[in-house]
Amino acid sequence: MVYVIGTSTTSFEQHLERSIVSLGMEALIGALKDAGISKDRIESCYFANALAPILFGDTTVGQNVMAAAGINEIPVVNVENACTSGSTAFYLAVNAIKAGECDIALVMGAEKMCVPGFGLINSGATELDTLLGMVTPATFALRAKRHMHEYGTTMEQLAAVTVKNRGHAALNPGARLRKPETVEQVLASPMIADPLTRSQCCPIADGASALILASDRVAAEFDRTIKVEAVVLASGIYDEKQDLARWKTDYLTAEKAYAKAGIGPEDIDLVECHDAFSISEILHYEALGLCAPGEGGHFVESGQAGLGGRVPVNVSGGLLSRGHPIAATGVAQISELVTQLRHEAGKRQVEDCRTALAHCMGGDKAGDTKSCTIVLLSR
Amino acid sequence: MVYVIGTSTTSFEQHLERSIVSLGMEALIGALKDAGISKDRIESCYFANALAPILFGDTTVGQNVMAAAGINEIPVVNVENACTSGSTAFYLAVNAIKAGECDIALVMGAEKMCVPGFGLINSGATELDTLLGMVTPATFALRAKRHMHEYGTTMEQLAAVTVKNRGHAALNPGARLRKPETVEQVLASPMIADPLTRSQCCPIADGASALILASDRVAAEFDRTIKVEAVVLASGIYDEKQDLARWKTDYLTAEKAYAKAGIGPEDIDLVECHDAFSISEILHYEALGLCAPGEGGHFVESGQAGLGGRVPVNVSGGLLSRGHPIAATGVAQISELVTQLRHEAGKRQVEDCRTALAHCMGGDKAGDTKSCTIVLLSR
Repeated sequence: MVYVIGTSTTSFEQHLERSIVSLGMEALIGALKDAGISKDRIESCYFANALAPILFGDTTVGQNVMAAAGINEIPVVNVENACTSGSTAFYLAVNAIKAGECDIALVMGAEKMCVPGFGLINSGATELDTLLGMVTPATFALRAKRHMHEYGTTMEQLAAVTVKNRGHAALNPGARLRKPETVEQVLASPMIADPLTRSQCCPIADGASALILASDRVAAEFDRTIKVEAVVLASGIYDEKQDLARWKTDYLTAEKAYAKAGIGPEDIDLVECHDAFSISEILHYEALGLCAPGEGGHFVESGQAGLGGRVPVNVSGGLLSRGHPIAATGVAQISELVTQLRHEAGKRQVEDCRTALAHCMGGDKAGDTKSCTIVLLSR
Repeated sequence: MVYVIGTSTTSFEQHLERSIVSLGMEALIGALKDAGISKDRIESCYFANALAPILFGDTTVGQNVMAAAGINEIPVVNVENACTSGSTAFYLAVNAIKAGECDIALVMGAEKMCVPGFGLINSGATELDTLLGMVTPATFALRAKRHMHEYGTTMEQLAAVTVKNRGHAALNPGARLRKPETVEQVLASPMIADPLTRSQCCPIADGASALILASDRVAAEFDRTIKVEAVVLASGIYDEKQDLARWKTDYLTAEKAYAKAGIGPEDIDLVECHDAFSISEILHYEALGLCAPGEGGHFVESGQAGLGGRVPVNVSGGLLSRGHPIAATGVAQISELVTQLRHEAGKRQVEDCRTALAHCMGGDKAGDTKSCTIVLLSR
């Protein structure tokens, strides 16, 4: 069994004058303090970053952060798995502890995206889909159109996702977009790819998040530990006809995670899911079993996914409002679960939160996702 | 316990008209055939690549190879750890099997470097050392100068490393530089960073290598299995005064690997080590305990590291002659050990090879390496 014993997340915003190392150090120091341990206890580091090679020509960035922290001689692994980079690092750290390689492991995701001229539209510059115009917002717009066609999902229901997550973000001092928006404002923002307006697309951000994991051999030393019930990582299905109203891999990963943990969707008190676009969150409600297929639009519009609702989703603000520093996101989602499961989330605390789920998805290919992760935690 | 049950490596050369996916597919198909299994048995993929984001703007390349192979729904992890990317992927796959996550895992390293205008001189474009002129060949030249000063190592001894590895490569149809060179020819090649001439610097290359690993639960199904005795991954020491004639991390990683496996340098029948430059191989002889500190120059000059010598080193041709497609190298080194331990290496077979070691090193920082791996295998 593996436990989370410490966590910390920087604010997600435009940190224009800070480096990845500076952001990583802030998250690391916060997590060490939170766990109540010195850096000498860290035996292993799983470091996620997606864009430093492309934007800065840098590699092995994890070692740069460890060097700044004076952490020597430990295994350091640099992981990239698109938007699931951070949760993949978490998966690897859990494996390392289960394999007996270490008792205390650091997981970190850190990303710096706010640099002049950079936007994130393409997914794989040499991918055929991208070359043919299937840039990221376009693929999600097609999914939204299909869901609207098939189930009668409305523009207002799509917008309700953003409205909810902006409302949550207003309670999270670390979120990037904290100003509430109404359905009318979301729909009136500039059209990016019909029907998705700008307010329905997640903003880029700079930020870092860290988690410290421990084996059951040492976990008893620590207070406020949170249990890892299951972690599942899966890649997509590329050779089958795809259905735009669902990612098959999303459903399969959820099934595996629930089976592995012996937990069902009815047991979940909180979800952080990969709301890269408003439609994504609606599709993920359905895949995670929070509501029936086709009912995602109603689920959010009726308030069931909001703080105080049946299953609060993206109480952090989600990607749409907290911001989406690619490799930091997967770690920050788990960090939010840990904070909530400890009942330390302040104004955005989910009442009696005992079991929580983080869901992440990375990369498009052949109508499916390239990577999907689900993490189940309990207090 | 973990076993290698299949392996395959493409030729390392300028594959100008081929993609990473094409090279990866060749290695994958070869490894499946070698293991005698269908692709449906692969439960997990650990994929190493270092340069595709920088050179092609691509990420999650492992999923592109899996998609081409029709391998769906499995965990795919993209790993980058400079020159140890491939051996780090191996480390992660061993952990996954030990953790009970899977019984059969694929490890792949694939790299395409031969693109117009590309050379690999810098190590971390924003690193202070690089900005101050400490580009890669310069740091190794300083190490060579220091070793010569401290131990009387000669230009001829440095050149002997290349001469030996070119001789080995002549026996390896997959090696990039197969034409024998004399000490005089090596010393007469253009000076890159005094005292290192061009023939003492490894060439870039395109290529891929794959390994299939199995748990002891399923290994009995397979013939010609090779046992993983130990894998150690370690990062550097960045806050101590460094000694140019040795990487402290190189010594510490070797100590840990020998201790973990209960094997000593006297038990090793074959070494593949990270001869990025001639001086590197000499320093690694000493760190790995093949000879005493300071005696590396004599060790190679006297023929002890050559095929038929006391401990053959880099019988594949090494980085210097087989070529160095960054992330493929760490996997290819282990692939060579497996081939030798099975006694299937043809003209370059090491007689009665029973225990073998692969050593890899990645990235410079603060006078130390950013990453070092050692893998110990036995038949």
